[in-house]
Amino acid sequence: MQEKRKMDAYVLLGGPKEDWPQDIKERFVSAQKAGDLIIGVDRGALFLLELGIRPDVAIGDFDSLKAEELGWVENTVGDVRYSVPKKDWTDSELMLAIAFKDYLVDKLFVYGATGGRLDHAMINFFGILNPDLRQYANQLYLVDKQNLLFYRSAGQYQIQKQDYDYFGVTCLTPVKNLAITGALYELAPYSGDYIRSFTSNEFLPDQDTFTLKLESGIVAILYSKDLVRFDNVND
Amino acid sequence: MQEKRKMDAYVLLGGPKEDWPQDIKERFVSAQKAGDLIIGVDRGALFLLELGIRPDVAIGDFDSLKAEELGWVENTVGDVRYSVPKKDWTDSELMLAIAFKDYLVDKLFVYGATGGRLDHAMINFFGILNPDLRQYANQLYLVDKQNLLFYRSAGQYQIQKQDYDYFGVTCLTPVKNLAITGALYELAPYSGDYIRSFTSNEFLPDQDTFTLKLESGIVAILYSKDLVRFDNVND
Repeated sequence: MQEKRKMDAYVLLGGPKEDWPQDIKERFVSAQKAGDLIIGVDRGALFLLELGIRPDVAIGDFDSLKAEELGWVENTVGDVRYSVPKKDWTDSELMLAIAFKDYLVDKLFVYGATGGRLDHAMINFFGILNPDLRQYANQLYLVDKQNLLFYRSAGQYQIQKQDYDYFGVTCLTPVKNLAITGALYELAPYSGDYIRSFTSNEFLPDQDTFTLKLESGIVAILYSKDLVRFDNVND
Repeated sequence: MQEKRKMDAYVLLGGPKEDWPQDIKERFVSAQKAGDLIIGVDRGALFLLELGIRPDVAIGDFDSLKAEELGWVENTVGDVRYSVPKKDWTDSELMLAIAFKDYLVDKLFVYGATGGRLDHAMINFFGILNPDLRQYANQLYLVDKQNLLFYRSAGQYQIQKQDYDYFGVTCLTPVKNLAITGALYELAPYSGDYIRSFTSNEFLPDQDTFTLKLESGIVAILYSKDLVRFDNVND
């Protein structure tokens, strides 16, 4: 059990392939080699098999899969969890519960969460706000070809630079004294009670971190980059 | 002035072209012919010119445009509004204020709001929650190749079916007694204080509307369709 507690999980949801990072296969293969848990949700389970990766867990109602596709999933995956439509919990929330509560994973990296249907994307962005799940907010990361989205609840953090150009912070709940220091645009302690984004911020050229402070509430931190580079002659 | 009050507006933001509806040019051309206001925001203003459509208003800091591109915008567009970086209002919020407060538009249809950078998408989804703007929530529509997102504040509505397969409802503020009737999945009056989505709902086969009731708060209604059709043999 001790070992399980330190395991990360890599999850593939059913979002469109065009929004995946180009090296998604390599990421899942090396995660599986490292002993991390691999989870496929709905069509994401099939996508993993098509990539040559056997999920440890498959979750969903699988109603978009053909019978032989579902058979492939059922015959290959050790732990298949069937969800029911017209349910209180969405597949995405069910996945968070299974990963954090049953498998006790540490960090959870979710791919295939963006693009395509916006109702799905909303669930994927905000499912962690479910009161039964929000204790795990700091452990969740959504990744696509040009964005990394993660969450921070009350506390003080040194947020590490990564290979992205911009970052934004979005208040997902009422927040008290949200402050950003050591970044291009500092934010003096802000309190507010609606979804508000502070965006297009950047790391300072000589800094690998910025400081985020939050007295109460949950924020999303969004790292992003432009995929198309424009020559920039007038700024 | 009376005429201006009934004008709609069509807006193009700078999101990736891959997420536009295929017939976007025809939509803007016919809107302009009908006398509706055409607005381009940042690179969206250039995209409109490239489509052969002259915006009535261009808004942004335009820092991603080359000098000659900006010159094209400035020499073509009658009303150019320059925003400043490190500002309290984002370009997207500024656009909403100009359209609703200066031009008194009725419905506002926004394209280029999704895909690409998630920090931009968040601003585009949630900018209307700015307390100075939320009075206009019922007039805002975001459109991409497979989604239509609009908003409803407290009231009772007959929501019309359109050419989409699914709909979801997401609570963007605390809500009191949100109820859905006359749809595949009914929602008994729900009150809650966090961002929560009720998703993958459908119109009843014999119904052109469903009823949405909301005692207080603001919700987003998301219409969506799958772009790739899967054969469905096991449901």
